[in-house]
Amino acid sequence: MDSSPARSHTSLDSFVDLYAARTAGMTASEIRALFAVASRPEVVSLAGGMPNISGLPLDVVGSAISDLVEHQGTVAMQYGSGQGLPELREQITDVMRLEGIEAHPDDVVVTVGSQQAVDLVTRVFCDPGDVVICEAPSYVGALGVFRAYQAEVVHAEMDAHGLVPEALRHAIATVKAAGKKIKFLYTIPNFHNPAGVTMSAQRRTEVLEICRDEGVLILEDNPYGLLGFEREPLRALRADEADGVIYLGSFSKTFAPGFRVGWALAPHPVREKLVLAQESATLCPPQFSQMAVSAYLAKHDWVGQIKQFREMYRERRDAMISALGDMMPAGCSWNVPEGGFYVWLSLPPGIDAKAMLPRAVTSRVAYVPGTAFYADGFGSGAMRLSFCYPTPERIREGVRRLAGVLEAEIELRATFGTTIPERGLPAGYDAPGTDVT
Amino acid sequence: MDSSPARSHTSLDSFVDLYAARTAGMTASEIRALFAVASRPEVVSLAGGMPNISGLPLDVVGSAISDLVEHQGTVAMQYGSGQGLPELREQITDVMRLEGIEAHPDDVVVTVGSQQAVDLVTRVFCDPGDVVICEAPSYVGALGVFRAYQAEVVHAEMDAHGLVPEALRHAIATVKAAGKKIKFLYTIPNFHNPAGVTMSAQRRTEVLEICRDEGVLILEDNPYGLLGFEREPLRALRADEADGVIYLGSFSKTFAPGFRVGWALAPHPVREKLVLAQESATLCPPQFSQMAVSAYLAKHDWVGQIKQFREMYRERRDAMISALGDMMPAGCSWNVPEGGFYVWLSLPPGIDAKAMLPRAVTSRVAYVPGTAFYADGFGSGAMRLSFCYPTPERIREGVRRLAGVLEAEIELRATFGTTIPERGLPAGYDAPGTDVT
Repeated sequence: MDSSPARSHTSLDSFVDLYAARTAGMTASEIRALFAVASRPEVVSLAGGMPNISGLPLDVVGSAISDLVEHQGTVAMQYGSGQGLPELREQITDVMRLEGIEAHPDDVVVTVGSQQAVDLVTRVFCDPGDVVICEAPSYVGALGVFRAYQAEVVHAEMDAHGLVPEALRHAIATVKAAGKKIKFLYTIPNFHNPAGVTMSAQRRTEVLEICRDEGVLILEDNPYGLLGFEREPLRALRADEADGVIYLGSFSKTFAPGFRVGWALAPHPVREKLVLAQESATLCPPQFSQMAVSAYLAKHDWVGQIKQFREMYRERRDAMISALGDMMPAGCSWNVPEGGFYVWLSLPPGIDAKAMLPRAVTSRVAYVPGTAFYADGFGSGAMRLSFCYPTPERIREGVRRLAGVLEAEIELRATFGTTIPERGLPAGYDAPGTDVT
Repeated sequence: MDSSPARSHTSLDSFVDLYAARTAGMTASEIRALFAVASRPEVVSLAGGMPNISGLPLDVVGSAISDLVEHQGTVAMQYGSGQGLPELREQITDVMRLEGIEAHPDDVVVTVGSQQAVDLVTRVFCDPGDVVICEAPSYVGALGVFRAYQAEVVHAEMDAHGLVPEALRHAIATVKAAGKKIKFLYTIPNFHNPAGVTMSAQRRTEVLEICRDEGVLILEDNPYGLLGFEREPLRALRADEADGVIYLGSFSKTFAPGFRVGWALAPHPVREKLVLAQESATLCPPQFSQMAVSAYLAKHDWVGQIKQFREMYRERRDAMISALGDMMPAGCSWNVPEGGFYVWLSLPPGIDAKAMLPRAVTSRVAYVPGTAFYADGFGSGAMRLSFCYPTPERIREGVRRLAGVLEAEIELRATFGTTIPERGLPAGYDAPGTDVT
């Protein structure tokens, strides 16, 4: 392992020789400056993954929280347990039951959003140089965590049915042959971020079998599972395999992200380690947030609320798919997600989504270039489009602007050829922060 | 560095070969089971560091939060920035000004309690084997973080005026002579946890000079600074040295811990790294918590509230000091803290605070043995007593019970001698979790 001092991009940093080796991997994305521009109201952002929570019943939430302060204020504002509030962990088992999971509240650890769950699991398992297998592409925020712990990401391809079993087998074999340790498979089975695809039931069985045979632990990240548009949720991987799966859930997309309440469900010995890691990281997750979420779940028809969210997001998905069909130039392709927030758009050969981004932002539309979702520099020929936050009208307008930028790009390329390398990006990826979660 | 698989204490853990090396350092303290007993109502707990927030104006907090949900609900419940809410960061600079710190909100990072600030700073700076210099004794939660990052703790003695300059110089020289890297000095200058002492103004100047001369960064942890009983706060170390100090603050003791809002004030390049680390750890600190704290600060006489807290804690400190003076057997000694939550009690030679704890709990009184606050097994002849949470009457009763236990222990020792090693504990320490923060 390289233990030389971290290098910084700026010579003004007098602490450069003092940082940990891992800190060399913490760099601000070059596309973040663009996202500051993209947050201007005249720009249609198809970049962000912010849920649209305008439909939440603020009166219900407000009165639940008022009651909380009045009747349990000194408990809600006090330290809590490192594992999280027992009542909330009980309610979390109810939420997971919707996807076929039978679990005990004692095996649940509450986390500061499911992002922190990814962080704590990685902390418990990964030494520098260990391998995490991820889908290609994968969630930018998880890639950032793996990088922060100096773990190596090995990607395995997906297709329209999710992670490809042969690709998973191949990745496992390659890593094992290289003498490296696989710590877990990180997968987002439902309405994938960023790819939009869902792992089919058949694939789930196959992936579970492979991981059982090969002794590979699964980290199942499922923030979007209840936001399907077409049918009832598929059974979680965890529903059919308790010992080999750590399951992560979140209230950020089914209720609201501002409380930062997520969770991990883990086999008992792992759960114990996660609690110790949580205590070291924060002493305890915010008690007030947990009691607010718990009160909301107790006092509101949260399942009905999720149904409303699903209908709203389906309408936006439909708006985006319809607009893409009407306006995208030849050579583009995309999938039709059955839930969640995202469409993955593949561009005609030679078009580089990252190089094109400044021109798109100038044309008042923003997206996330595909490279953000790969640890290995791939993805330049694709982008992630989010339909969660803008209205259907704005989505259509955004796609119109994007189509215009793409047409100009294609024309330019037809006239002059390209000087943009198709795969020439350096290894590494852009972690654009909360703007693109 | 040892890269062998982590060893667990239980053979039932099938993941034992899969954990990261750091996870071997994450073990539940053997005294935690006792603390479960200690939380029974019949036990007087002088162990916990929970603030007494019963004096908070719940009506003010309740109406501030109701307003928040009603008028800014969709902002408060949405994702926020990784660095934290700008308005709150501005207010935090007002808080720090009370201790002589002039700072820009842009150099503040909001964290999930100041515990997370310790975690993020350590993440940014410490590779395995790096050295952190800590006072002897030091905060158990910080020792746990340093251990989780596999940093080595080297202790430097304190006396009644705080960290001893010669001890600091000696520690620095010893570490440098051993060819190891010192990443920072971790210090709690005010109303030390657990030692109760405050670094004098003269000592602050000396410590700053030594660290400047030796190129040692200072991590100044100051959760209790505004809770002084005798006089106005001393100037923070950060007030006289902006470039070489990372300052940590918290609302847990001056308002309420349940929101988990703390902060780090850091030199600009370090602040940038901390924001990236925060985004990787949680995406962003809880927006709702931050807006609740911000509303409280804006709408309430928070300085007056702190004054009330000070008076309440002073009364409890007085009750404890008076009870100790009235009842402790000969051979015990303690300090009179000028603020904060804690008294450090040194026991007669040969009495082991950790070995005695089960007998104390049986006699319905609890404390934290001194060994919890040392990384090297020292501290068995001392204990931390907290006066923050129980009423003055309960404090007196707790000290009475403790005195009884100690007298029996001293008598036993006089009769039979001791079989308890005075310094024979294995290296390592007890991290008893949130019970004893």
